[in-house]
Amino acid sequence: MAGEICRRLHQSEVVGEILVGMLLGPHLLGAISESLSLNVFAEIGVIFLLFTVGLETRATEMLRVGGTATAVAVLGVLLPFGLGLALMLGLGEKTTTALFVATALVATSVGITARVLTELGRAASRPARIILGAAVIDDILGLIVLAVISGLAEGKFSFLKIGLVVAEALAFTVFVIVVGQRAAHRISAHLNRLRIANPAFVVSVALCLGLSALAEHIGLAGIVGAFLAGMAFAETREAANIRRSMEEVSALLVPIFFVVMGAKVDLPGLLRPEILLLGLAVTALAILGKVAGCGLAAFKLGKREALSVGIGMMPRGEVGIVVAAIGLSRGIISNDIYAVVIFMSLITTLITPALLKRAMARSPRA
Amino acid sequence: MAGEICRRLHQSEVVGEILVGMLLGPHLLGAISESLSLNVFAEIGVIFLLFTVGLETRATEMLRVGGTATAVAVLGVLLPFGLGLALMLGLGEKTTTALFVATALVATSVGITARVLTELGRAASRPARIILGAAVIDDILGLIVLAVISGLAEGKFSFLKIGLVVAEALAFTVFVIVVGQRAAHRISAHLNRLRIANPAFVVSVALCLGLSALAEHIGLAGIVGAFLAGMAFAETREAANIRRSMEEVSALLVPIFFVVMGAKVDLPGLLRPEILLLGLAVTALAILGKVAGCGLAAFKLGKREALSVGIGMMPRGEVGIVVAAIGLSRGIISNDIYAVVIFMSLITTLITPALLKRAMARSPRA
Repeated sequence: MAGEICRRLHQSEVVGEILVGMLLGPHLLGAISESLSLNVFAEIGVIFLLFTVGLETRATEMLRVGGTATAVAVLGVLLPFGLGLALMLGLGEKTTTALFVATALVATSVGITARVLTELGRAASRPARIILGAAVIDDILGLIVLAVISGLAEGKFSFLKIGLVVAEALAFTVFVIVVGQRAAHRISAHLNRLRIANPAFVVSVALCLGLSALAEHIGLAGIVGAFLAGMAFAETREAANIRRSMEEVSALLVPIFFVVMGAKVDLPGLLRPEILLLGLAVTALAILGKVAGCGLAAFKLGKREALSVGIGMMPRGEVGIVVAAIGLSRGIISNDIYAVVIFMSLITTLITPALLKRAMARSPRA
Repeated sequence: MAGEICRRLHQSEVVGEILVGMLLGPHLLGAISESLSLNVFAEIGVIFLLFTVGLETRATEMLRVGGTATAVAVLGVLLPFGLGLALMLGLGEKTTTALFVATALVATSVGITARVLTELGRAASRPARIILGAAVIDDILGLIVLAVISGLAEGKFSFLKIGLVVAEALAFTVFVIVVGQRAAHRISAHLNRLRIANPAFVVSVALCLGLSALAEHIGLAGIVGAFLAGMAFAETREAANIRRSMEEVSALLVPIFFVVMGAKVDLPGLLRPEILLLGLAVTALAILGKVAGCGLAAFKLGKREALSVGIGMMPRGEVGIVVAAIGLSRGIISNDIYAVVIFMSLITTLITPALLKRAMARSPRA
């Protein structure tokens, strides 16, 4: 019902799911409490969400939008990360806490952006292609940063350790992309010899869960493995089939993730002046970081298109919330700071559609 | 992998899933243990399994095969129930235990039978239509018996209590069939006005879970509500769409149910001579009850077709296992007797395809 209401208000269903979680959660109505089984459903939900995002990420398409998109992605990662880190360290937070908040500011939500561009009927325009390419690249960068940060959070802080974790995260990513993609192509070619029902779905989901477990096992986040598993299958001939099959499974499990994430938000706590102020400051930096960083990188396209690109990169969604949730579960960030990150995700998601519509209306059609 | 192996050995995938559960379970390898989250997944899995079975159950089709199918179903319920009850009481078991075992012998597995008939290319023949009609009717009878038995198991044994539980179960069933079907038709007609993705799937799954919770709330088994919810949508114009959407969700969750059910089987315990003997006796009565009961009811079709019908009604599957699992979780039946019921389900499922193939080959084509 919340999803339907949001759709009618021209908002993403995700917004409704988080708000329902806040409402039903232990901090307000108390209808849902911290329960193991809900958390397990939520965890499987986010694994499948990232698997689906991976399935939509074609390596060759990313290479095609190439230069500009990469520049937009890199500057759009560096600036929000730097601004977030500076703010949190300036406020006297611990380094690990500051790093987690900064990481949560990094990744644009491909899902939300793609949905808005499709609704505007502009998904094929030049800024749209750059936005989608850059959003995919910064998702990968965000996951690598998350891998590094969560590796660091486990042990002591040293340059050797940083180097090792970066190397491990990069090695895993490159290995799965290179070997995984070949393996996925070879597997896809032989799937029709299996006699079980819907073999492409069964085999790819098994590999997704296997790679997630492997990623957790070597100290990375499970979602990194799920995303890479999806990416490995993105360009196989079974990709469309797997995507279609995942739709219903996602429709069932993904909302549980966002409801559970919403339930963790202490809304009365968020409404205390000092926390609300921090939330507004973080949100302002999140917006400034993307609009300035991405806009700068896309400046050669002209002022209007550069602004469209910057605004299109604003919404943060699943990856940022996942980062915050991991930080919360490990005791690295507090309930207050978790609420601040969710606040930032909600606001950037809520204001993007209207702003993007106005900016795109002024930029030339493709 | 187990599913694939079973398919190549011309067995149902369900057999492979139960055997994998036995192998990985705490009584053998110990790779999976009693965990809350696995049980929750299994419970949701069986809810969706019965919802899917319900979606394939058309009230009008049942009325069309009418007389013979009803006679086959009723005699095929009464004889195994009576034989099972007599055996268990004769062996000195408690009345509630004997009632649970007898109930587990009642319901033919529509899923397994339908799959075998389709594989034989004879799904449209006269015996096939009677088998499918009767299997559906005995599923409903089985669920009503289960509702009555589990209601009885909660309190003291009295004729007033039996009457109340029967009345409650019948009232719930009739109410959902009559009101639910009208409501489902009306809802289906308006689903295209919703703006969320795949509204038919979202709304029907929500109603399925809601009716399951309601059934549990008034003391019936949750699966009764799920089955009736499916049946309510079976003849709406969205039925095919919902069935297709449920396929992937079922592919993911239903195997977990059968693996968890398998894991509860104490295989070393089952192999003790006295338990194995009981298992063989129960299996023999399960086979005799259906072949004699259903064959007798279908005798006017001629000896060969009557035999085909009797054999086609033999396999017990999900409903029998669910009955046993409910009995086990409430402490009404022991681990040994649970293993006996699973043994009976496996054997009747394993031997049906080959026997049915031979019987059908001799009976005239439709």
